[in-house]
Amino acid sequence: MDYQAYFAGRREQQLNELKEWLSIPSISAISAHKPDVNKAAAWLAETLKRAGLEHVEVHETTGHPIVYADYLHAPGKPTVLVYGHYDVQPVDPLNLWETPPFEPTVRDGKLFARGATDDKGQVFLHIKAVEAILAEEKSLPVNIKFCIEGEEEVSSPSLPPFLEANREKLAADVVLISDTSLIEKGKPAISTGLRGLCSLEIALHTANTDLHSGSFGGGVPNALHALVELLASLHDQNGRVTVDGFYDDVQELSAEMREEFKKQDFNEEKLKNDLGLTTLFGEEGFSFVERTGARPTLELNGVYGGFQGEGTKTVIPKEAHAKITCRLVANQNPQDILDKIERHLLAHIPAGATLDITPGERAFAFNIDPSHPMLQKAADAYERVYGTRALFTKDGGSIPIVETLSRVLSAPAVMMGFGLPDENLHAPNEHFNLENFDKGLLTIVEYLKLI
Amino acid sequence: MDYQAYFAGRREQQLNELKEWLSIPSISAISAHKPDVNKAAAWLAETLKRAGLEHVEVHETTGHPIVYADYLHAPGKPTVLVYGHYDVQPVDPLNLWETPPFEPTVRDGKLFARGATDDKGQVFLHIKAVEAILAEEKSLPVNIKFCIEGEEEVSSPSLPPFLEANREKLAADVVLISDTSLIEKGKPAISTGLRGLCSLEIALHTANTDLHSGSFGGGVPNALHALVELLASLHDQNGRVTVDGFYDDVQELSAEMREEFKKQDFNEEKLKNDLGLTTLFGEEGFSFVERTGARPTLELNGVYGGFQGEGTKTVIPKEAHAKITCRLVANQNPQDILDKIERHLLAHIPAGATLDITPGERAFAFNIDPSHPMLQKAADAYERVYGTRALFTKDGGSIPIVETLSRVLSAPAVMMGFGLPDENLHAPNEHFNLENFDKGLLTIVEYLKLI
Repeated sequence: MDYQAYFAGRREQQLNELKEWLSIPSISAISAHKPDVNKAAAWLAETLKRAGLEHVEVHETTGHPIVYADYLHAPGKPTVLVYGHYDVQPVDPLNLWETPPFEPTVRDGKLFARGATDDKGQVFLHIKAVEAILAEEKSLPVNIKFCIEGEEEVSSPSLPPFLEANREKLAADVVLISDTSLIEKGKPAISTGLRGLCSLEIALHTANTDLHSGSFGGGVPNALHALVELLASLHDQNGRVTVDGFYDDVQELSAEMREEFKKQDFNEEKLKNDLGLTTLFGEEGFSFVERTGARPTLELNGVYGGFQGEGTKTVIPKEAHAKITCRLVANQNPQDILDKIERHLLAHIPAGATLDITPGERAFAFNIDPSHPMLQKAADAYERVYGTRALFTKDGGSIPIVETLSRVLSAPAVMMGFGLPDENLHAPNEHFNLENFDKGLLTIVEYLKLI
Repeated sequence: MDYQAYFAGRREQQLNELKEWLSIPSISAISAHKPDVNKAAAWLAETLKRAGLEHVEVHETTGHPIVYADYLHAPGKPTVLVYGHYDVQPVDPLNLWETPPFEPTVRDGKLFARGATDDKGQVFLHIKAVEAILAEEKSLPVNIKFCIEGEEEVSSPSLPPFLEANREKLAADVVLISDTSLIEKGKPAISTGLRGLCSLEIALHTANTDLHSGSFGGGVPNALHALVELLASLHDQNGRVTVDGFYDDVQELSAEMREEFKKQDFNEEKLKNDLGLTTLFGEEGFSFVERTGARPTLELNGVYGGFQGEGTKTVIPKEAHAKITCRLVANQNPQDILDKIERHLLAHIPAGATLDITPGERAFAFNIDPSHPMLQKAADAYERVYGTRALFTKDGGSIPIVETLSRVLSAPAVMMGFGLPDENLHAPNEHFNLENFDKGLLTIVEYLKLI
């Protein structure tokens, strides 16, 4: 079979199909987009059916639907469960998008749209790979199940109970996930680790009303002064988190792990230039890939209070807000970290302020041994298509459900990513390089045939 | 003449008239409101004419118009120039207003609307006082000029050149201004000092795009981390400004000045309770009235960066912003203070960030000797109406143009305020106590007859 020719002949049609999906603003975090999320799920179910999948279901949850489908006609062969998500991140600041986030556009060999690489574009590859094999060979070399959710960007609240309730139906020998990245163009990678996550929002209040800075300035607390003082206490000047006990359960890097990171031969100078940074920044004594792959973080994702409009407003704000997320590694327990941050915040409340803390998500880090045959065969599949064997890396991002999937289904998770690190996921101008669209299709076909 | 009866008989009609003016959203800082600012100026001109004033002009400027009117038929008598402003502050956060800011509403003897006390309501008193005397006595005991601007809330850029160009026309023996407050209900005050002002906006940039906190977190600078670190460096934990040289030109409080402040017998406990503060807050060793009357400040009026929407967004923001104003006292030079702040900020830029500083307004503090006869007679007028002599205070707010008016016209400025300190000026639910509406009308009539 010449799958390269097969896909080449259908490229424009398949891209148009993907664009249709990408044009649905399925932002799971924003409740006004609920109808769009449903529409994206229905589109997915329809597309799975047209690809030849069976038992296609849109499973309603208390949140957004989970789409299931299978094709189980290879007795004695392994069963692959493809996991992915059809929901996307919010899009603000909208004015920084060169083309609107939900009007997919190809420029310079890249498909620009919210969700292009995270994760609709990558899920789409699996559907089209299965469709191709079925079209060309009238059967699949494995049993396959799709389980595609609509709540990954809001920490997958509905999937764990769905997994628990459907262990038999979802049972698999491997969980296959494309929601990560190559190291760089032409250098494929299989992630053997994902960071965990916990999140919280804080609000400081100082008065029952905003106050005039003339009449009151200098004599009353200012919620913004309190907030910047409190937030500044969370890191030292080198970016190390100062929360007591934050690093207790972090695994020190072994010489072996450091060697593995070095193999990536990551170009820090290029990253710096690409992102317009004056310097990389983070904990002393670690490289960029170590910092993002094996070290935890505490990041301010949003801070706001007071006047943001045009001009000057001489106001003393009565309240101020911050949104915080931590990336966790190794044995860090997300609840324990939330508790430690809360203790730090309570111990550092500035005079005159009261503090509200709203904890949010909690997810453990995930790690897998790269010597597992399902991972080794994935590296082989990449080699056949990319001409170079995939490296085993640790990814800085979190796919909170991976740890759950692997644990509940007792199956290894293979993170076969086709994104690139600079594709602006979660940011304006998200895109997907079409070179990896093409090679991703072929790599998945190879993998399904190899295992 | 029984002016009390005169005003009582016209109260509802006059309030309705004022409500009409207050319903025009003349927000000078927001360019989209330009037509409303013009409308408020036209309304004012029309009302001055109807009150009997002559030579009414709407003087166009490069910004918002200045409205002039006069009545000069008392040869040998003093000339009073009434200064005030018809522009208002922005209204956000709109959701905190109990009734819409531009739908004036009377509740509990208070008139709620943006501009009710700052300053349309207080300007209105002067027009109606003059109208009353003209109606009752067919002449005025003084010569009077009105000069009411539309740019006070944006630091009066057009008025100084207008004053310079019209010294003769505006010449006066006293500048009369009602844009300040009583100390509290029943305790009138004449402000003998106003704080100066300078403002700036800062922006920190760390990258050319927002970044995913998973892929990059821990390895790149975060603009919000940089911002909170930089802003936290501006104060110590007691609220004292740490900018080098900030207090150099501040006058130390003499025993005499402290005595004057003590006379106000200011109820700090009541203020704390009224504003829902857990504690008053500010420089050690000063009372509230000293902190706001005789000490400078550096206040964060707005801070923002990153995600502010519903839910979580795991983003590392590429930029972060702050709006800052300082209240200045005594001999502090606003440009000098801006320079010192800039030096501080440049010396404290966190690693990985670049800093943009946009300086804004600059105004000197104003002070006048309370023994001046024009001030003593104002205290007498208050005494006749309120039954208690006005105290001479220092006001924490800034009316940048007062220093200019007094200097250019070589006349004392009498700040005869009728607001109350808790009337939420510059905040949601601004209002004007109608007791002071009534007494304000009578006090102005008394004053014009006394001088």
